[in-house]
Parts: sequence; C-alpha cells; structure tokens
Amino acid sequence: MEIPRLRARGSARSVTRVEFTDLHPDPESYLGRAARIQLGHVETLGSLIGDFDRFDDKERLSVAAGFALAKHQGLVAEIERRDGDAARSMAEASAPIDHFRRITRGETPLESLLSFHVTSGLLDDLLIGLTASLPSDLGPRVGSLLGADAGTSGIVDILEREISVDRRTGSFLAMWGRRLVGDTLLLARDVVDVHDARGGDAVEPVFTELIAAHTRRMDALGLTA
Amino acid sequence: MEIPRLRARGSARSVTRVEFTDLHPDPESYLGRAARIQLGHVETLGSLIGDFDRFDDKERLSVAAGFALAKHQGLVAEIERRDGDAARSMAEASAPIDHFRRITRGETPLESLLSFHVTSGLLDDLLIGLTASLPSDLGPRVGSLLGADAGTSGIVDILEREISVDRRTGSFLAMWGRRLVGDTLLLARDVVDVHDARGGDAVEPVFTELIAAHTRRMDALGLTA
Repeated sequence: MEIPRLRARGSARSVTRVEFTDLHPDPESYLGRAARIQLGHVETLGSLIGDFDRFDDKERLSVAAGFALAKHQGLVAEIERRDGDAARSMAEASAPIDHFRRITRGETPLESLLSFHVTSGLLDDLLIGLTASLPSDLGPRVGSLLGADAGTSGIVDILEREISVDRRTGSFLAMWGRRLVGDTLLLARDVVDVHDARGGDAVEPVFTELIAAHTRRMDALGLTA
Repeated sequence: MEIPRLRARGSARSVTRVEFTDLHPDPESYLGRAARIQLGHVETLGSLIGDFDRFDDKERLSVAAGFALAKHQGLVAEIERRDGDAARSMAEASAPIDHFRRITRGETPLESLLSFHVTSGLLDDLLIGLTASLPSDLGPRVGSLLGADAGTSGIVDILEREISVDRRTGSFLAMWGRRLVGDTLLLARDVVDVHDARGGDAVEPVFTELIAAHTRRMDALGLTA
C-alpha cells in the first residue's frame, strides 16, 4: 500500500493562501464533472446498501444516496438551463472518475465506506470551493446545492460504531485513509481543470486547504490523518 | 431452469374469486414484512445503479430506489406509531426475503432488472391487496403509501429499449420471467402469513389475480408470460 507523503499538519498556515477564486473553471465542464461525481456518489452508496446488515445502516446509506441524487439532478438542471448537453458533459468527465471509483474501492464494506467518506468529503469541498470562481449567476446557486446535507452524520455514525468495536480496525482504516488522500488529489487536479495562466501551480495551496478539512474529518473519527 | 406450470391465461375469470379481504394478516407482522420487502427493493435497485452504463438509466434506477426508500420509511413509521419494534419485525421477515433476493438475481444486469420488475410487481400487488384486510385505521393509509409511484415507468423504458435491440434478449427474458413467477409465489405464500382458519387454501385464488396482473406486465413488454 502506497502512502503519499503529506505536509506536516501545522504547515498549512505558513503557505501563501491562494483562494479558490484564483481558479477559473469552465462552467459547463465544471457542471458536467460535478454532476458525474455526484452520480458516482449515488452508485457507490447504492452498492453499499446491500453490504451492511443492519437495517438502520441500510437506511442511512440510502438516505445519503438520495441526497447525492438530488445534487446530481440539480446540476443536470443547471446544465440544461444553459442549453448544455448534460449527458455529453458528464461523459467527458467519466473516464477519470470511473477509474478513481475503482481504485478507491475497499476490500470490505467498511473500507469502502471510509473511502466514500474521505474521498467524497475532499471532492465535495473542492467542488464547493470552486463555485466561488463560477459566474455570479451560477456560483452561489450551485454552492448552495452542493453545500446541502449529504447524509454525512449517518455515515459517521456507522464508522464511529465500527471503529469503536476494534482498535485494529481504526489503525487499518487510518492507513487506508492516507492512501486515499493521494488518489483523491490526483483526481482533484483533473476536476479543477484550471484555465488560469498559472496552471497547476495555483492548485497546490488550494489542496492544502482541502487536506486541512480532511484532517478534521479523520480527527472526528479518532483516526490519524 | 425450472419453469412452473401456470394456469392458462383465460382461466382466471372462471375461478371462484376470493377477495384479499378473506385473508387476515397480523398487522405488525405484515408491516415488518412489507418494510423489509421495500428495503430489499432499495438494495436491489441500489446495486443495479452501477451496473448500467447510461447516465439516464442510473438516474431512473436511483429514482425508483428513492421511491422504495420512502415506502420503507413510511412503513417503519407505522410500526413505531403502534409502539412496535421495526427492526425486530423486519428481522423476523428477513431470512426468506434475503433467500428470495439471492435466487432471483439474474446473471446480467438486464436479467436482474427484469427480475426486479417482475418480482416487485407481484409482491407490491400482494402487499397492496392485503391492506384491505388490515384494521380500518391502518389499511387505507398503507394502501395509499404502497400504491404511490414506484418508478416503474423508468424501469419499463430501460427494459423496452433493451428488448427492442435483440429479439433473442426478449425470448430469454420471457423464459427467465416464467421462472421468477414460481419463486415469487413461494415467497408470497410466506408473506401472506394467513391467520384464517382456511389457511393456505384461501391463498390460491388470490395468486390467480396476482398472475393476471403479472401477465399484463409481461404483455406490456412484449414478453409471453
């Protein structure tokens, strides 16, 4: 298992902060990627419903899938409102997202669920951050859509319960979580699709912010990020 | 592949009709089974979302899963309103339902989707029919809940499209559909859980009605039931 080297946790503040507003995603491309990512959330959660035995877990996962579906549908509506072709925009974004979903799938339902929590947290943060650089008639609406409930608390309930059962589960999941960050940031680089002259360089500090939020998510589960 | 012998299609009308009202399910047992069946629908549809490549198919399946989730939640609320234990009622119903879902899973996504359409159609018809014999403060409310949209038209759209691509697909699915009826009626017998003195004998004519509705569903797809 490859573990990407991350910056030391405290260093985030010493980096020159580049706001998400310095990045300028193409609106339709952004919407297609975001819609495909949310549909991927639905697929991942949908497949997990049958993997957990408890009825309340099945319901938590189903509810979260419903929230992601609503976001997907809202994004498709935005593409259509702009006379875009939602299927085409999503198809253009599919290859890396499908690949990403394959390589971040866990070997157990619990690993897959942590994977979803970690990767969807990072990706949704990125997508929400990028709305600041969308046109002003679009950004706030999409930000509000993506910032709505994602069913995260139900997923955290499952993860906390399972981690509390066995300390080894927690330490394995912590290691698994570290690997996921590297994979997710690779996809994130693709999602950003920067049209800024500074290209990829502008992205690095943005990722530092994403990792700080990720670290808080792992801390909340008692896992070392 | 075992193909159960069914009555000739025209004979349904010549049988003495026994209304569903002659059966008297125990309310909490009924609600637990119904809630577990709807949650099973969510699981089946959830796992199929990732199996279909088209985005619009993924959305159709997700929407149908959302409808089944809402029915599941409504049934759980009914159990709790009666101070019942929803998890326990569902658990008591789980073994045959889980077994049923395993044996009716197809070898391809399309077979699995036809299976869902056929089996959920029969089971939902049965559950709706049985509401007529529930206490009057409960039956109509549950009937209305279960009778709400199940996302069927989206599923039929997918099946019709795929069947139209290749005639052999249709004839294979017709055969697969015939097998499913036998499996479903076995589960249905368990779902009915008749408290009537006449026991299982009262069930047979009810099944004839279910099969008539099933035949109409298959006809609508151009498949011979």
